[in-house]
Amino acid sequence: MPDALSPNAPINTDRLQTMMETVSTFGGGPDGSMTRLTLSKVDGEARDWLGQWFAQNGFVQQVDAIGNQFGKMTLAGANAPVVMVGSHIDSQPNGGRFDGALGVISACEAILAVTERLKAEGRLSACNFQVVNWTNEEGARFQPSLLGSSVFTGAAKLDWALDRADGDGITVRQSLEAIGYAGTDKVEIPDALIELHIEGDSTLSSVGERFGIFTRHWGATKYRLAFLGRQAHTGATPMAQRKDAVLGAAYLIADLKQMAGEHGLDLHTSVGRLEVFPNSPNTVPSEAVLFIELRSGSPEVLAEAERKMKVKIEEAAAKAEVSYEVRSIDRRRAGRFSADLIAMAEEAAASHGESARHLDTIGGHDAVAVNDVCPSVVLAVHSRDGVIHHPTEFTSPEDHALGTQIVADMLYRMACEGVNVAQIKEAAE
Amino acid sequence: MPDALSPNAPINTDRLQTMMETVSTFGGGPDGSMTRLTLSKVDGEARDWLGQWFAQNGFVQQVDAIGNQFGKMTLAGANAPVVMVGSHIDSQPNGGRFDGALGVISACEAILAVTERLKAEGRLSACNFQVVNWTNEEGARFQPSLLGSSVFTGAAKLDWALDRADGDGITVRQSLEAIGYAGTDKVEIPDALIELHIEGDSTLSSVGERFGIFTRHWGATKYRLAFLGRQAHTGATPMAQRKDAVLGAAYLIADLKQMAGEHGLDLHTSVGRLEVFPNSPNTVPSEAVLFIELRSGSPEVLAEAERKMKVKIEEAAAKAEVSYEVRSIDRRRAGRFSADLIAMAEEAAASHGESARHLDTIGGHDAVAVNDVCPSVVLAVHSRDGVIHHPTEFTSPEDHALGTQIVADMLYRMACEGVNVAQIKEAAE
Repeated sequence: MPDALSPNAPINTDRLQTMMETVSTFGGGPDGSMTRLTLSKVDGEARDWLGQWFAQNGFVQQVDAIGNQFGKMTLAGANAPVVMVGSHIDSQPNGGRFDGALGVISACEAILAVTERLKAEGRLSACNFQVVNWTNEEGARFQPSLLGSSVFTGAAKLDWALDRADGDGITVRQSLEAIGYAGTDKVEIPDALIELHIEGDSTLSSVGERFGIFTRHWGATKYRLAFLGRQAHTGATPMAQRKDAVLGAAYLIADLKQMAGEHGLDLHTSVGRLEVFPNSPNTVPSEAVLFIELRSGSPEVLAEAERKMKVKIEEAAAKAEVSYEVRSIDRRRAGRFSADLIAMAEEAAASHGESARHLDTIGGHDAVAVNDVCPSVVLAVHSRDGVIHHPTEFTSPEDHALGTQIVADMLYRMACEGVNVAQIKEAAE
Repeated sequence: MPDALSPNAPINTDRLQTMMETVSTFGGGPDGSMTRLTLSKVDGEARDWLGQWFAQNGFVQQVDAIGNQFGKMTLAGANAPVVMVGSHIDSQPNGGRFDGALGVISACEAILAVTERLKAEGRLSACNFQVVNWTNEEGARFQPSLLGSSVFTGAAKLDWALDRADGDGITVRQSLEAIGYAGTDKVEIPDALIELHIEGDSTLSSVGERFGIFTRHWGATKYRLAFLGRQAHTGATPMAQRKDAVLGAAYLIADLKQMAGEHGLDLHTSVGRLEVFPNSPNTVPSEAVLFIELRSGSPEVLAEAERKMKVKIEEAAAKAEVSYEVRSIDRRRAGRFSADLIAMAEEAAASHGESARHLDTIGGHDAVAVNDVCPSVVLAVHSRDGVIHHPTEFTSPEDHALGTQIVADMLYRMACEGVNVAQIKEAAE
């Protein structure tokens, strides 16, 4: 067993930085911004560059039908376990350079460093490694987000995903063909998945730490709810005769805020979108459609919040004397990442004198999708002031190196000891 | 002095009904609907027909620069007082046949009946009479409503009014020219104004009466108010750090409803329009713009409501931790119609065995605008089930006749006794 107190497979920080700088030339602006929308021309150019790097460094590229781009390093024979590592290189419009890209580039460097180390030691590997660059993590050009990873796991249907269209009516299918990434490779579900990502929040900043592990991913329950009243004149109609759909909405919005307060930090509630009809200043609204989100790291809290919300919807409708219709419900399950991978990351961090703060990821990551089908984890390095999706998003080269070294340590350990990780997701059931 | 217990100038009910049927052919549908948008081609045709009727019956037509159409019956010399009578023949899209048109047609019949009676008696008149058909009462095609009467009183500037455009970008000016009603006549403010209208509400129905008098017109205070928060992700952003503009809006909407309840029937409050930015399901809203209306028949209640609302706005903003901006304030003064005209209408109704229920008009009528500059009143006849602005809007021929006869009685009395009416609007100051 390797020495736990020193880097087992030391990464090459210069090589890592050069790759980070190179990938940033594809869609990067002079102000630090990044606009590399998924399956755009510049995304295609970045993918081509990554494919060339795979070829030059002994990785075999595969591309599946939704355009997920893989680079496999086979060290242990065709039937050995596979550890997949990566993230996404697509970005938001006018976003930052580190969200996603760091996870792909660090995967390349970590696998290369482990491969070199094993060769130098003449050691056989217990597993193979595979870089992944997922299609459309961001959901900025095509909705929904996590599209490539969701097709990979089977949670989304391929044909449906290929038919998603952007604001100009161009489909995923057309975009994949245009940049040459409508692949035909069948890639197997791996035995473990590791994703390194910038934190994108300010917890590490606030406690003065550099490294964290997302141990839980929050679930979300999303309702599209319509309150239905009766259109009438805001002048002549007596107040007692009004059926004001917006009033029902107002009561519920206040109640949802109140509900979040009752659960401390464990529940987020929001109404981000509100559609009012006919939306005329002198007409009592006949319809108000609310886009409600409940989010929690605890499936129990989420279920309880939904139960409470149903009562509040009834109460708001009764108080405003309107009716309501639930137009759609969308649920994303809360869960926990692999305890084995979390423990392995903690040990690797400790070997470098770093603590590993446990974090929740509330928004999505590809590893959240993949965690449904194989043991996964998302590791986080400090992002300055918690900024994400903005040109000022920043993670230092030292923190890139720390995160990448921890990934390399984990991979080296699995190469030496085998991929002995189980999936723990009982909390998600 | 004429006998108060019998019709002084009996109207011709057949002639009245024939005119009502004829005017309904301009824009009327087989289902009872009426679509005669102001200054449309069909509105021009109806105006032309009315002008021909003026010429055939001894009225002299005048058209002013905003297209208000007048028909003057001069009985008492050029400098005698003038009593103006009328309403509007424009309608809502897919509206009813009686809203407005009854007031213009009844004015024609009432003045004609009085003229005939005076001639038959060989009696000199103390005043002249003038029919009016106001431009764009409805505000359906061009905003604001009451446009012609507001220009007539000087409350709205002519050039501004001519520049109002409809949804297709066609201005009032262009529309007036297209139908030949860009007039040049200068018409003086009259000494009194009488408008007969359908009630458009169900008070008379509910008490089983046929006739009412609008004694008060409600005032309105309209705010365009923006709550300003901060755009953030509905997932990652902790609840305590959110500045949710829609939450501020929700608190205020609930408070405004509560405020109305505290004033019984004397205060109407509404938020008919709500604009949310960026209005994305997973983004905490940064801006919510509310179109707020406060309406009351009492200037004191209206002023108190505005004071209360200002406190509620502060409280809602503080509770939601957002700021706010008042983008515009528009005030329409509450007031009372002429006590002398009200008394005269009550006496005329009583002479026909009818009570004269005192009503408030909450929405606008042209006489509300004109009441600022001369003694005015709006008389109301029963409208079935209170329906207005709908094809099923209906007022019976018997009620047309009742209202028209009461107007004729009032005109006959003023012809005999002089126009001794003062404007009472102290309550509106």
